[in-house]
Amino acid sequence: MVNIKDIKKAALLIAPHIHRTPVLTCKAINQMAGCSLFFKCENLQKVGAFKMRGATNAVFSLTDEEAARGVATHSSGNHAQALALAAQLRGIPAYVVMPTSAPAVKKAAVAGYGAEIIDCEPTLQARESTLEAVVDRTGAVFIHPYDNERIIAGQGTAALELLTDHPDLQVVMAPVGGGGLLSGTALSTRALASDARVIAAEPCGADDAARSLEAGHIIPSVQPNTVADGLLTSLGQLNFPIIKKHVKKIWTVQDDEIIAAMRLMWERMKILVEPSSAVCLAAVLKHGQELENQKVGIIISGGNVDLDHLPWIES
Amino acid sequence: MVNIKDIKKAALLIAPHIHRTPVLTCKAINQMAGCSLFFKCENLQKVGAFKMRGATNAVFSLTDEEAARGVATHSSGNHAQALALAAQLRGIPAYVVMPTSAPAVKKAAVAGYGAEIIDCEPTLQARESTLEAVVDRTGAVFIHPYDNERIIAGQGTAALELLTDHPDLQVVMAPVGGGGLLSGTALSTRALASDARVIAAEPCGADDAARSLEAGHIIPSVQPNTVADGLLTSLGQLNFPIIKKHVKKIWTVQDDEIIAAMRLMWERMKILVEPSSAVCLAAVLKHGQELENQKVGIIISGGNVDLDHLPWIES
Repeated sequence: MVNIKDIKKAALLIAPHIHRTPVLTCKAINQMAGCSLFFKCENLQKVGAFKMRGATNAVFSLTDEEAARGVATHSSGNHAQALALAAQLRGIPAYVVMPTSAPAVKKAAVAGYGAEIIDCEPTLQARESTLEAVVDRTGAVFIHPYDNERIIAGQGTAALELLTDHPDLQVVMAPVGGGGLLSGTALSTRALASDARVIAAEPCGADDAARSLEAGHIIPSVQPNTVADGLLTSLGQLNFPIIKKHVKKIWTVQDDEIIAAMRLMWERMKILVEPSSAVCLAAVLKHGQELENQKVGIIISGGNVDLDHLPWIES
Repeated sequence: MVNIKDIKKAALLIAPHIHRTPVLTCKAINQMAGCSLFFKCENLQKVGAFKMRGATNAVFSLTDEEAARGVATHSSGNHAQALALAAQLRGIPAYVVMPTSAPAVKKAAVAGYGAEIIDCEPTLQARESTLEAVVDRTGAVFIHPYDNERIIAGQGTAALELLTDHPDLQVVMAPVGGGGLLSGTALSTRALASDARVIAAEPCGADDAARSLEAGHIIPSVQPNTVADGLLTSLGQLNFPIIKKHVKKIWTVQDDEIIAAMRLMWERMKILVEPSSAVCLAAVLKHGQELENQKVGIIISGGNVDLDHLPWIES
């Protein structure tokens, strides 16, 4: 199982290639929340998301021989861009399987980082079989977006930095989709601040992680529906045991609460965050009575939004 | 005349009350610009603007006797909020004269920081006579938004921090309206990086500073018209001599160029900047051939925008 040594090793390995993102505070939001929030701004990370950490760790951990064959993944989100850029930084090929339904702007971003895009039908089965064919053809190493130890170790470096800057945090929060960020965050927090609680947050419309934690086994995400489109996936096999062991609770929030928290962060903190990144603040504002007067770290996962279609503006 | 000692003194005085804002870089924008840009993010400052620096210096420089009577200003912009918050932090009254035409949201923000708002007709004459009456009645100290030595010293602390973090900058840029930020920036740059050039930028629709610098005397701003509504005012008497002495040139840009640069910063840097803050980047993208491969610092002035009315979305 991944441990804090892997995370510290990842931190050293990726440091030359990523941003050390700032931790921001906002008095007005603290007053509304009744606690002191410390936001780790991974929206200001390269490619606009924490995904750069795990992808960079995975790519730079490869042997020269493995690396020469390149890396491959299926994703229409931030992981695809992150893997493409990390591969570009190492000077190796990247192959990204994307559904034909993916927005042109996302394909352009991945292609802009020099990756080869392979189209597939927009079904999970088509994604997996297309990926398999690509790996067979190229010999590239498949880098799963979250169910991968090096990805988990890389994502854990965000909380490592946060707790290095603010060792007295009493709670650390992260949103949960597949569980890559959350499992890495939990491991770093347990190691660096053993008394701090790890709390996750997810949309009511994609609450498979909350139900899985309650049931004690992975319950897959079926037809999730939420504005927080980074949190649709089911928990990974490597991620769930870590989450089960270290995460106290998973709060759920409605989409209108997510949008309100997102707008609040834009207005008061002057940063772009994507809906998935506002889920933790929405949860604090809704469920946070028990956080009163505590010091709470929140990982802001990313800032990739379509500026022509903001969720609070009718289009 | 204000000097670097005043700026260093201001930095110490205001440090407990303001954010030390991060300096961000963005590879994608550097590639477009052909130079290395270092953005000092005063949009992430308290009240969302560099104005907090000058206002805090002015308020905390008052003697106890002066402070007890409070501070007053006329402004409908970021200075009003900054002065209100700085006064609240010192626990003294603030009186802000605002035109009846000021947006309700701006009045609410100023009132939210505990200031007393005094309405006036939306003319310069009414603002000045109303302010005079307020000062007569209360004995409050008038704090001009830019034509004030303590304001200039406070605004200069942004460049002081920027050059402390990045002492090898070859150019430092700031937008110019009344000249408070630009004059403070010029003084800090001259003292900390004597070989660095100071370059300003302003909208074509409010190019009084560029014309003033060329003429060698202040040419007032007459009926300015630009999306960059923080840069409408004429240069101050204390600001112009500093600018004339230390500023190499003032580049001008069109509103469509400002909006494009603003959107670029939102999309690629994941931060909210107001149009006035995008004027420097717009100028670099337009005029910056001579900055090729240089290290250029840019002060981002603020991030206060109306999220219901973004300039690139038809409403």
